[in-house]
Amino acid sequence: MTAVTGIAGQPSGALLSQYRAVRAHSQALVQPLSAEDCAIQSMPDASPVKWHLAHTSWFFESLILGEDSSFAPFDSRFGYLFNSYYEALGPRHPRPRRGLITRPSLEEVMAYRRHVDAAMDSLIGRGRESIASRVRLGLHHEQQHQELIITDIKHAFFCNPLLPAYRRQPPAPQTARALDWIDHPGGVADIGHAGNDFAFDNEMPRHKRLLQPFRIATTPVSNGEYRAFIEDGGYRRPEFWLSDGWALVQSEGWDAPLYWLSDSDGCRSVFTLSGAVRLDPHAPVEHVSFFEAAAFAHWAGKRLPTEFEWEVLAQRFGPGEVWEWTRSSYDPYPGFTPFAGAAGEYNGKFMVGQLVLRGASSATPPGHARITYRNFFPPSARWQFSGIRLAEDL
Amino acid sequence: MTAVTGIAGQPSGALLSQYRAVRAHSQALVQPLSAEDCAIQSMPDASPVKWHLAHTSWFFESLILGEDSSFAPFDSRFGYLFNSYYEALGPRHPRPRRGLITRPSLEEVMAYRRHVDAAMDSLIGRGRESIASRVRLGLHHEQQHQELIITDIKHAFFCNPLLPAYRRQPPAPQTARALDWIDHPGGVADIGHAGNDFAFDNEMPRHKRLLQPFRIATTPVSNGEYRAFIEDGGYRRPEFWLSDGWALVQSEGWDAPLYWLSDSDGCRSVFTLSGAVRLDPHAPVEHVSFFEAAAFAHWAGKRLPTEFEWEVLAQRFGPGEVWEWTRSSYDPYPGFTPFAGAAGEYNGKFMVGQLVLRGASSATPPGHARITYRNFFPPSARWQFSGIRLAEDL
Amino acid sequence: MTAVTGIAGQPSGALLSQYRAVRAHSQALVQPLSAEDCAIQSMPDASPVKWHLAHTSWFFESLILGEDSSFAPFDSRFGYLFNSYYEALGPRHPRPRRGLITRPSLEEVMAYRRHVDAAMDSLIGRGRESIASRVRLGLHHEQQHQELIITDIKHAFFCNPLLPAYRRQPPAPQTARALDWIDHPGGVADIGHAGNDFAFDNEMPRHKRLLQPFRIATTPVSNGEYRAFIEDGGYRRPEFWLSDGWALVQSEGWDAPLYWLSDSDGCRSVFTLSGAVRLDPHAPVEHVSFFEAAAFAHWAGKRLPTEFEWEVLAQRFGPGEVWEWTRSSYDPYPGFTPFAGAAGEYNGKFMVGQLVLRGASSATPPGHARITYRNFFPPSARWQFSGIRLAEDL
Amino acid sequence: MTAVTGIAGQPSGALLSQYRAVRAHSQALVQPLSAEDCAIQSMPDASPVKWHLAHTSWFFESLILGEDSSFAPFDSRFGYLFNSYYEALGPRHPRPRRGLITRPSLEEVMAYRRHVDAAMDSLIGRGRESIASRVRLGLHHEQQHQELIITDIKHAFFCNPLLPAYRRQPPAPQTARALDWIDHPGGVADIGHAGNDFAFDNEMPRHKRLLQPFRIATTPVSNGEYRAFIEDGGYRRPEFWLSDGWALVQSEGWDAPLYWLSDSDGCRSVFTLSGAVRLDPHAPVEHVSFFEAAAFAHWAGKRLPTEFEWEVLAQRFGPGEVWEWTRSSYDPYPGFTPFAGAAGEYNGKFMVGQLVLRGASSATPPGHARITYRNFFPPSARWQFSGIRLAEDL
Repeated sequence: MTAVTGIAGQPSGALLSQYRAVRAHSQALVQPLSAEDCAIQSMPDASPVKWHLAHTSWFFESLILGEDSSFAPFDSRFGYLFNSYYEALGPRHPRPRRGLITRPSLEEVMAYRRHVDAAMDSLIGRGRESIASRVRLGLHHEQQHQELIITDIKHAFFCNPLLPAYRRQPPAPQTARALDWIDHPGGVADIGHAGNDFAFDNEMPRHKRLLQPFRIATTPVSNGEYRAFIEDGGYRRPEFWLSDGWALVQSEGWDAPLYWLSDSDGCRSVFTLSGAVRLDPHAPVEHVSFFEAAAFAHWAGKRLPTEFEWEVLAQRFGPGEVWEWTRSSYDPYPGFTPFAGAAGEYNGKFMVGQLVLRGASSATPPGHARITYRNFFPPSARWQFSGIRLAEDL
Repeated sequence: MTAVTGIAGQPSGALLSQYRAVRAHSQALVQPLSAEDCAIQSMPDASPVKWHLAHTSWFFESLILGEDSSFAPFDSRFGYLFNSYYEALGPRHPRPRRGLITRPSLEEVMAYRRHVDAAMDSLIGRGRESIASRVRLGLHHEQQHQELIITDIKHAFFCNPLLPAYRRQPPAPQTARALDWIDHPGGVADIGHAGNDFAFDNEMPRHKRLLQPFRIATTPVSNGEYRAFIEDGGYRRPEFWLSDGWALVQSEGWDAPLYWLSDSDGCRSVFTLSGAVRLDPHAPVEHVSFFEAAAFAHWAGKRLPTEFEWEVLAQRFGPGEVWEWTRSSYDPYPGFTPFAGAAGEYNGKFMVGQLVLRGASSATPPGHARITYRNFFPPSARWQFSGIRLAEDL
Repeated sequence: MTAVTGIAGQPSGALLSQYRAVRAHSQALVQPLSAEDCAIQSMPDASPVKWHLAHTSWFFESLILGEDSSFAPFDSRFGYLFNSYYEALGPRHPRPRRGLITRPSLEEVMAYRRHVDAAMDSLIGRGRESIASRVRLGLHHEQQHQELIITDIKHAFFCNPLLPAYRRQPPAPQTARALDWIDHPGGVADIGHAGNDFAFDNEMPRHKRLLQPFRIATTPVSNGEYRAFIEDGGYRRPEFWLSDGWALVQSEGWDAPLYWLSDSDGCRSVFTLSGAVRLDPHAPVEHVSFFEAAAFAHWAGKRLPTEFEWEVLAQRFGPGEVWEWTRSSYDPYPGFTPFAGAAGEYNGKFMVGQLVLRGASSATPPGHARITYRNFFPPSARWQFSGIRLAEDL
Repeated sequence: MTAVTGIAGQPSGALLSQYRAVRAHSQALVQPLSAEDCAIQSMPDASPVKWHLAHTSWFFESLILGEDSSFAPFDSRFGYLFNSYYEALGPRHPRPRRGLITRPSLEEVMAYRRHVDAAMDSLIGRGRESIASRVRLGLHHEQQHQELIITDIKHAFFCNPLLPAYRRQPPAPQTARALDWIDHPGGVADIGHAGNDFAFDNEMPRHKRLLQPFRIATTPVSNGEYRAFIEDGGYRRPEFWLSDGWALVQSEGWDAPLYWLSDSDGCRSVFTLSGAVRLDPHAPVEHVSFFEAAAFAHWAGKRLPTEFEWEVLAQRFGPGEVWEWTRSSYDPYPGFTPFAGAAGEYNGKFMVGQLVLRGASSATPPGHARITYRNFFPPSARWQFSGIRLAEDL
């Protein structure tokens, strides 16, 4: 992960450039896709690409433009279609049925984006300070959906027996890296976001945590290391697994990370955004659930780091290749206060039954993530670019 | 239903014209639809329009072209994607996941159709008698899918809160028709198809049935008549219902036919291929399940006809507005012999748990149906254009 | 099956003896069972033995004693607990939760039976002709539940890894019987019950059917014959199966009849009412679904008989060892009229989605079945004592 | 909760008395129940009382007696039946099917208990120090199942429309208590168990936590307070709920705590171990899920305490009336080490997706709980005696 630049505290000219850049990036992501590709939903957890494009526009419309009485919504029926989960903003189309919306067409959704962009351009141009923080929220929100566009189309393509590719160029081969460790003596540490830069409410308030001495690996677990776990019977030996994880291994027939393909010569190829390719043993393992991450760590005689351990050393090991499961449940920080208004539903209401992931992945837009960023998914989720970093007590 | 013309016993020139006409009709049906519309699957029972277009081509490819050693398949992977249920023709993509196939695109599927058409044109042109009956089967098969294209896109559009229309022109209003009856004295009747014209294997062999005296209504039940059933508590009174039907009324919350809309002023509008329109009280009720048809008949003090009663009088009352549920389970005729080869899976293996519907509907291609035609669906199915004709004992 | 004697048209003294005999037989069946055994329900299709004992008493209470104003019900809350499916007789405890009723205890249910018996004794003794037919219905009803007591406890015991036995003595070994055939020339036959003896409404009215020439086997299919089907890949070859049956084979992992056990030396033992025993190759195969029966017949190059073919020759081949699946859907006879009153829900409302079985089994109480008797179950049901008799066209 | 005495560090005479007392208490709990009552399982989360009686005996047999070569197991098949979830101890009967085990009978299970008790008596009497800690674990384990016997039979009785009572005497009415608060200044606190007394592995190691200033209520939330939440639309207003909780409210139709009954005059009675009684407004609300606890706290403008906040002040407010949901996910303590051997599966493998409850309830055996005790259940669980204590930031 590069130094934190991103979308924060700019004057309005800078904010406008930022707005345009983020919005343009969403559309650039869609270039390789047909209208058909953009319409489908491969599972309830995923959404159609077209829906992401529309929802992110609806977000600006509902949270910012809606309070401008001169603004005319593009289509008054879109609120029902493209509200994701905001109870305060009215009823909505059931999530598992997002893939049934062939109308509006992709073309109409692009027109919707232009309609919103024109109004936002004008509004930001007027330089009203009161909206700046909401614009930044909307842009960070759109960046999150940029990553979801990638994860969701990857899953959708994987559901097609033809295994189509999103991009032509194959992943670059990686070089072997030795596993090394960084030690930490423990003690009181500052955790969470501070300052005027943008951050989500769930990263705040900055507060103190008491850590025990520990150490953390300098690199994420590689495909080759994970293969050794598989070859040692990792998916057949319950002693490594949390109880719910072992139940899933059995009910779902898991025997490798999501997207690993069974070749006649063993598990050596993998489905990627470039289609099926040979598995790179030196690349970080991706698309594992928390259960698999924890089982691997158990097998390796280590453990996963807590999100606090991760945060205090992240500057030193430099994350950003994969989202890294931590051993921390997604609980509120002490003194947590949700964003005001409807945006209060953004994060807080999901704080149960999920695990924190830290870092960023190859699918994360540049400048989006932070050291204090808290990503979160249920422990069974595998379609994100999620991997493993080991830790242990000292 | 007009006199039986259709696809049957032609010389090769006629067969070729027929082939071209049927194939062209499929494509004409798709004109109002976008590629996005053609890609989606709204429920496991329905299929994407694109899938229907490809599957019908695969049918010609697999059952006819495949035996010509000079024929090169368009894409060897399409057999897996577009085989519907023929165990003898290899493994296939799971039915509930047909809506996830964005590639091949609609455009590629159209190219696939052209590839198959060119080969079929050439083959039919060579005038080989041995393939004529299979060509006719393939065309009747395609006509069945033409009806499914209509029923399936109607269902898909109904799942979209915007309720898009497939066509512009609204349904023509119908005039009131008095209920009249045709009597039959009973006795031995000839049932089933005979002669050289095309018929499906399930309509044969022609055989004798002994009927009891009965009478049958001259018109199908209308929306207005069905509304009276609803207003008399039809969906709240178990005494009219078969046990499994009553269970569905409760678990699914059925209170009207599929596609009837709840207006503020009561159930007076209905979703059609032309979008939402006022309910026409004189038009035949459509989109009822067998359970609803049987409950209505019970409430009316009548019963549904058997498929044999229906067949012996159909010439006189002239069916064709809606598929009409009969009180006959879909059992094999005495001496039933499936088609030879893979086509033997066409009908016979579905002969359990379904009910026979007779007639044809507004969605049936002209010339497709016959008096002896046996359509069949599970008793809970409602997305077909299925209605009710009453009968009673004399 | 022995000659039809059973419960029919007796004077009141005879009726009283019959009442006492049938009621006593239910209690005799329970002798080998503990109160715990009698309380459990192993699946929604089955019921606890205690429930059968109470429900059959409730049947007399509701349909006969209830109209006697001097009769005081044993417990006014029992109607809710022990009504099976009679909508006309009020709401009821959900069927899948019958196994959660530990109170009333078995002892209390026995007291309930005595309370009903005392009132029935007195009522029958008064010789009122008007109740005689309902008493007979109640006794035939109780006999049906006597068979269900056996089938349901067998299933419950099979769910216990200890495989407890209901009775001590093992089944008697059977002798090999050669397969022979009885021919029938076809023509018009009388079908259904006539006369004053008791019969269920679904066996009536007696009417004429036109049959094609056919022949039927003199013996049911044996375990040994069925094993040959298994060994020939019967459960791995879709070509023998109806489509829904093949789906079940795969989803349920069926590879043998219910209750066949996998021994280290192949499928050679079977769970019976006497516990696990060696499979008797000469005994009729039992506990197959309609799907398995039809697949076996297909494999054998034969077919199942229709219920009408079965009925016209049953006197000659002498059924009674197992219930025999027919190729007839459970449809109403022409002119079918349900019993009057609440008893009208006894049979008619189940006439869809089921197949007719004819004959009787080792679990059927003596004197209960008739040549015209129509048993019925869904095509997937296997926990009844259901077997196979072959037929073919001539 | 009274001072911690319980089962800990005794000499062998004391250990033997303790063993006998705990084992006798289990059997005392069963006195009001019939064999039928003890056999049923009302949902997969609950177990039959008989199973609890057997499983706790199997625990001693497997973890202690099994290593004594002279010990003969009561029945070698019981390991399969009564192993709960210990992968290291072999395969086991599926949890949702525990209610189908009518044999062994309750009487046989009591004989099994006597067999184990005799062997344990002799073993403890020999004074081998090496087994003392495992005996203590077995006794604490049995005490946990004593509470489950109560919660599970309560749920089972609630599934019976007759709403039977476990005990005769009604709950004593409680007196109103004013809500008061205890403040805490924050700072580093010692958390977790230390010393030689018995504690579960999940309570250790004792370690330091940094707390922010907060305060905590002196009493749990009462039924009357909870009713105010309901009457203010608590179950109809999504703004109070975590997202998964709101989904459950809608899918399950929750509108009150489990066991509250709908009377004609509103929610004023409740099902208890004494049957249905008037709701006591001054008694602590019981049988709420974590979701309901959190929604109530949100509505009240407070929050739930973390388990650490709870622990540092528990001595002052004196818990023990209900299990109290905390806002802490059930994560391992830093440096957590599972028990050695098969007992390592006791707690650790469940550390995901659950929330910590602290305290004890009216169903907890005397002397079982501790200030450091960590109970845990999924956030949707309601059949435990779980209630609410409020906290807030200072």
